[in-house]
Amino acid sequence: MTFTVTHQDKASGARTGLLKTAHGVVKTPVFMPVGTQATVKTLTPQELSDCKTQIILGNAYHLYLRPGREIIREAGGLHKFMGWSGPILTDSGGFQVFSLAVLRKITQKGVEFQSHIDGSRHFLTPEDIIGIQLDLGSDILMPLDECVPYPAERDYARESLKFTSLWARRSKETFLNRQNKSDGRLLFGIVQGGTYPDLRKQAAEELLEIDFPGYALGGISVGEPDNIKFEVLEHALQFLPKEKPRYAMGLGTPLDIFKAVEMGVDMFDCVMPTRHARNGSAFTKSGKLVLRNAPYARDFKPIEEGCRCFACKNNYTRAYIRHLINTGEILGVRLVSLHNVYFYVMLMQRIREAIQKNKFLELKKEVVNE
Amino acid sequence: MTFTVTHQDKASGARTGLLKTAHGVVKTPVFMPVGTQATVKTLTPQELSDCKTQIILGNAYHLYLRPGREIIREAGGLHKFMGWSGPILTDSGGFQVFSLAVLRKITQKGVEFQSHIDGSRHFLTPEDIIGIQLDLGSDILMPLDECVPYPAERDYARESLKFTSLWARRSKETFLNRQNKSDGRLLFGIVQGGTYPDLRKQAAEELLEIDFPGYALGGISVGEPDNIKFEVLEHALQFLPKEKPRYAMGLGTPLDIFKAVEMGVDMFDCVMPTRHARNGSAFTKSGKLVLRNAPYARDFKPIEEGCRCFACKNNYTRAYIRHLINTGEILGVRLVSLHNVYFYVMLMQRIREAIQKNKFLELKKEVVNE
Repeated sequence: MTFTVTHQDKASGARTGLLKTAHGVVKTPVFMPVGTQATVKTLTPQELSDCKTQIILGNAYHLYLRPGREIIREAGGLHKFMGWSGPILTDSGGFQVFSLAVLRKITQKGVEFQSHIDGSRHFLTPEDIIGIQLDLGSDILMPLDECVPYPAERDYARESLKFTSLWARRSKETFLNRQNKSDGRLLFGIVQGGTYPDLRKQAAEELLEIDFPGYALGGISVGEPDNIKFEVLEHALQFLPKEKPRYAMGLGTPLDIFKAVEMGVDMFDCVMPTRHARNGSAFTKSGKLVLRNAPYARDFKPIEEGCRCFACKNNYTRAYIRHLINTGEILGVRLVSLHNVYFYVMLMQRIREAIQKNKFLELKKEVVNE
Repeated sequence: MTFTVTHQDKASGARTGLLKTAHGVVKTPVFMPVGTQATVKTLTPQELSDCKTQIILGNAYHLYLRPGREIIREAGGLHKFMGWSGPILTDSGGFQVFSLAVLRKITQKGVEFQSHIDGSRHFLTPEDIIGIQLDLGSDILMPLDECVPYPAERDYARESLKFTSLWARRSKETFLNRQNKSDGRLLFGIVQGGTYPDLRKQAAEELLEIDFPGYALGGISVGEPDNIKFEVLEHALQFLPKEKPRYAMGLGTPLDIFKAVEMGVDMFDCVMPTRHARNGSAFTKSGKLVLRNAPYARDFKPIEEGCRCFACKNNYTRAYIRHLINTGEILGVRLVSLHNVYFYVMLMQRIREAIQKNKFLELKKEVVNE
């Protein structure tokens, strides 16, 4: 079994589980820090381990463009290239092709686009995208999909879904043909369908027919209002089998994570911990601290009292970090990134512990007051 | 005794020594990484210790502007503020007032200038500059001086020297009046005088009359040709007492350091290790590697084989670092900074060991081929 549900919360959809990958077993619910370009921004793999990170994310589109699949393959794969020995999930780059690349042309065969970096032209098929991720040596691969934007017309979302479903089937075929079975790599499916309930249902059913060891919810957290986001999520989840892991792509805030875990989501990724760090915004149990703000200029407490992250336990103060952020010093971003990643990882640990004790809803109330 | 010469090389002016400061004894010749804004760019104090850094530099001008002397004083001084427990030398900011600030007006009383950050107006006397450094808690303080640019007219250099000498005297008086004698803090003198031999002699003599526990050579490495730089340095050094430490401000390349050590210089600071890291340039025993360059794209060796820096001993490859630098990822700058600082610190250790064995010139030939 790839995935085992170890405990189902008695009062909600929240559950704990174990996800077996080629680079170790991941305890779920899990947060995956984003390492788009073969690095979680500003941090070393050693620091990620110290933060108790279980699994990180990479991005096939970005790594295909730079440094290129051949270089990573020659390096012995992404794990060796970047020095991270834990599991890696790679996003297909579907989202990036549609959000970053220009002049794209989508056909049944694949996507043609110009690089957002140098304007160079590329054509990638779903088969290529699987090949790239096999070269990267990803533990969990994602198929090429079209991430439907918000808002999108129904006709557009329906037509888009045809490609996404077709590509999912071809991705699975390529994966089965090309992977070494003993590797234990996993290819997930991605449920699209925009905000249309029937299309989400159709998307889920088409993927289930192909059969994947895990299912991701895509095309959420793309600008839609919060109520729609969670309506779509809850609706789509009911069509997914309880015995498979569910991954909500791109979520989110601590509140988003609590809401989704409550619905039975197991996996999360979000740039928030590192992106917020760049502005000096730190996550704490009592909310977000915007360390740039004047009140912290003479605040010689750590970001969060009692926190065991590198920055807090070594007594880096809010005043010092504020100074570093305000003077553009990279150490400031590093320290807040370390704190924020640790915060997210610890949040998930607390969530898992609470679920085990059937106290998930109590923790949710305590942390996000909902 | 503040400074003890422990060995004089038999074949050159090079010597080893021990410099006693309030935060520990420094083995000389020593390289001081530059931490202008209360951080050696991208690195933590823990990493600096791991690199075997003995002493770092801060800058009174920068820290006076941001975060301000009061905040650092309230934090318990610069050591506590930034979390570095080793010795700190702070530059007065004379160089920065004259290179960064605008609309400056120099009078006998002090300097009036506009901040290079927000244009705010400030007036600082030599007495203020000492007070700021006492607030910072520096182990070694530098007096306000005028760093004469290159080229400079003789009349300009002569007039400038009047202020520098006068300010040195007032700095010493303020230091004696305001410091707590048991602190063991040190105020050095700075020899200016441009490229004019008689002015350099006069500068040195005037400082000797005031009497400092160490002497810095200022106004070198400010754009003058190499031959002039070392002529000025060698000329000025002859007027300085052998039993006091000599500090060549802003030097330099490994070659610069070898040349200056040969003349009897004991202390160095330079932004080169961290500044070069930002462009992905790494120092090695066989010269500088420009890691951005294409040949490194598939080079899976560490920056330098056998190097024990964090980056090399953890097998971060040239190919990976090149990718990080080319994609603007901060981890690349971090890794090269760690390597470069370690390279400089180890270079000084090798220099000290060679001097002890009277083999300094052999080492110089081996490393810089001169």
